[in-house]
Amino acid sequence: MDEPLAISLFSGTDDKLQAAAVLTAGAAAVGRPVHIFLQYWGLDAFRANGAPRERLLAPEAGPEGLAAVEALATAGQASWHDTLAQAKEIGEVDIQACSLSMDLLRLGPDDLDPLVDGVEGVTAFWLAASEGQVLFI
Amino acid sequence: MDEPLAISLFSGTDDKLQAAAVLTAGAAAVGRPVHIFLQYWGLDAFRANGAPRERLLAPEAGPEGLAAVEALATAGQASWHDTLAQAKEIGEVDIQACSLSMDLLRLGPDDLDPLVDGVEGVTAFWLAASEGQVLFI
Amino acid sequence: MDEPLAISLFSGTDDKLQAAAVLTAGAAAVGRPVHIFLQYWGLDAFRANGAPRERLLAPEAGPEGLAAVEALATAGQASWHDTLAQAKEIGEVDIQACSLSMDLLRLGPDDLDPLVDGVEGVTAFWLAASEGQVLFI
Repeated sequence: MDEPLAISLFSGTDDKLQAAAVLTAGAAAVGRPVHIFLQYWGLDAFRANGAPRERLLAPEAGPEGLAAVEALATAGQASWHDTLAQAKEIGEVDIQACSLSMDLLRLGPDDLDPLVDGVEGVTAFWLAASEGQVLFI
Repeated sequence: MDEPLAISLFSGTDDKLQAAAVLTAGAAAVGRPVHIFLQYWGLDAFRANGAPRERLLAPEAGPEGLAAVEALATAGQASWHDTLAQAKEIGEVDIQACSLSMDLLRLGPDDLDPLVDGVEGVTAFWLAASEGQVLFI
Repeated sequence: MDEPLAISLFSGTDDKLQAAAVLTAGAAAVGRPVHIFLQYWGLDAFRANGAPRERLLAPEAGPEGLAAVEALATAGQASWHDTLAQAKEIGEVDIQACSLSMDLLRLGPDDLDPLVDGVEGVTAFWLAASEGQVLFI
């Protein structure tokens, strides 16, 4: 069960971030190393001290989907951020920002959430993700 | 050709459900076992006896994309639901609902479409999907 | 490092096309063969001599994300099309249109961008992608 899992985390909606966090936590729980590569709006969600953003969901969620997500959050469900932090405590989870997306969003290393372990280019990502499974979220 | 394929089916738009169904049917046709894990709006699409939903597509489809999809449906193209049912007849296709998403949508086992084979947690998903390829749709 | 990479390229927004092109170029740069299967709106983006489309992004990009993407384009960033063309020069990149999506969009082989190498069905895609990693974008 030590098959590595790599995730290119492109999306910045709350529901996909939550799905990515849950899949990461589950993989870490069964002993798999997880390597997350933050691109575009996925990276945008990992700004340090960012103002809390309006809760954005996939367009098909609709008002009922939003109400369901907000009801769970009010009931105390762990946020995607908390779930990822827990996954880093129980397993080997490495979170890297894509250098091209850093340029796109005009971010420097100090602008990133402490959950982010570093910045790397796409070639480094593929060298790290050459084995195991890979997801684009 | 018996490499397993796992799909985390998160999206609930008609076009992505159709793409997931076609990829599943093709994999089943070449003898691969397919394990589908329904999350969020992907699970929402598998409600039993659900009222037919308005046809939702990815935002970039636009009016021309919607017209194209509706023209094919009118011409008798199999729905994603029919395609998945056929895939289950010709191959080994296991469809499991994510237990966390069941809570989110307040669903019980009786609320699910008969195509769904059961409910599992994310750890069980990763144990089942530890080998082969995996997609996030 | 010759592990094959297959990509089902479903999405047609500029940001996901750019992410797909960058991931493809990076994989080609480390010597991996890449097989791209164009479906739905991903195929729609590969029309020959298409009128330039309005720049479409994932919904969560918002006005700030659009401004960031346009600023990079103005500063001379390679387009996703240029990046893919370069990837084909440095590595083994095979781009195939999904035959079902060709029917959906009422396209013939002459309607396709010269970057597209051919048309194939989903079974052929899975036969080509039976080994290595696979992404759905």
